[in-house]
Amino acid sequence: MSAAGRLRLSNFAISLDGFGTGEGLTQDAPFGHAGERLHEWMFATAMWHRLIGEPGGTTGLDNELAGRHWEGFGAEIMGRGKFHTGPGPIPEDWRGFWGEEPPFRTPVIVLTHHTRPDLEMAGGTRFLFRDTTPQEALAEARELAGGQDVRLGGGVRTVREFLDADLVDELHVVIVPILLGRGQRLWDGQEALEERFDLRLEPGDSGVMHLLGTRRTS
Amino acid sequence: MSAAGRLRLSNFAISLDGFGTGEGLTQDAPFGHAGERLHEWMFATAMWHRLIGEPGGTTGLDNELAGRHWEGFGAEIMGRGKFHTGPGPIPEDWRGFWGEEPPFRTPVIVLTHHTRPDLEMAGGTRFLFRDTTPQEALAEARELAGGQDVRLGGGVRTVREFLDADLVDELHVVIVPILLGRGQRLWDGQEALEERFDLRLEPGDSGVMHLLGTRRTS
Repeated sequence: MSAAGRLRLSNFAISLDGFGTGEGLTQDAPFGHAGERLHEWMFATAMWHRLIGEPGGTTGLDNELAGRHWEGFGAEIMGRGKFHTGPGPIPEDWRGFWGEEPPFRTPVIVLTHHTRPDLEMAGGTRFLFRDTTPQEALAEARELAGGQDVRLGGGVRTVREFLDADLVDELHVVIVPILLGRGQRLWDGQEALEERFDLRLEPGDSGVMHLLGTRRTS
Repeated sequence: MSAAGRLRLSNFAISLDGFGTGEGLTQDAPFGHAGERLHEWMFATAMWHRLIGEPGGTTGLDNELAGRHWEGFGAEIMGRGKFHTGPGPIPEDWRGFWGEEPPFRTPVIVLTHHTRPDLEMAGGTRFLFRDTTPQEALAEARELAGGQDVRLGGGVRTVREFLDADLVDELHVVIVPILLGRGQRLWDGQEALEERFDLRLEPGDSGVMHLLGTRRTS
């Protein structure tokens, strides 16, 4: 694997008990009973403040890692649930959770059995709906990324599928000290991941812990 | 709650995916497929080296917290599985996993439906077998501890029972960056524990993470 075109999981937040999203997901509550609690650490950062056009914010490791979420990526792959809370066909007039100018600014492959035409948004984001395998989605994303990395955008099941297929080169999981108790577990089926990845834990500046992993070269 | 007589969970190690012990527990493999992997961080500390009569060992936060495991406690409460891998009656000649001079050096209440006479060991440890509730076990342990704290010694189900009953005053969980994939989950049924405890994460010096919690005074 060359340094370019890596598949990277970035700023993926889970609770202490391993849930990457809550229970009871709806279009109005896409994280279910978790609400925004897995993401509040990020709202405190200067990166987020900049994104929403406000001054201030923290400037420590949380901010540094959150900032990298938008750097060096030429494409994203996301599960359908991140684009629209399923199941079933995606309504024709639904254009995602991010308004008319989404922050991705690259092609975004949305994995779904309910394909539909590409969706061109303002600011460089283009949603491509694909009913395909992780391997094929990654091959297309790499081509679209033009030598830059590919972001593995979630949700939980999508991340697990790519981990199961051993396609992930780098991972960054944010462990938030709350217990959700229910929802979708990130680590299900990931026994002995530490044998495939060099894992290390780094303390954030807001009480969270960053788990950073690099796939070992075999 | 006065400062004395607190019930404290101390140096209780879990994997990143929340397992406090593995699968397939036997007398020869009391942690099942987890083996000693949840405890290797502690074997590196100066405290452990001292305990087994060897020089050296690390002297950072891991060692400081591991050392507190033996300080300020006047009694321990443990589940039967820590004393003898169940189920069923405990064989009459079984005297625990720790040899003739166990490191506890206090009374130790063993919660079991299969009671038997007290067991007096060398060095001050006395095992008391009780078929009782968490509340009554704690009341007895507090009396035996003579003003010192009571250690909640595990295993997983015992810790959960005491958390469920809201009897735990302080907790210290060590998160080890491995994925066991299966076994007994510490956090099952502990949704929103962060509302009852002030939780914070502190990085150890061997790659583990220490979760420290103090019950909020209501």
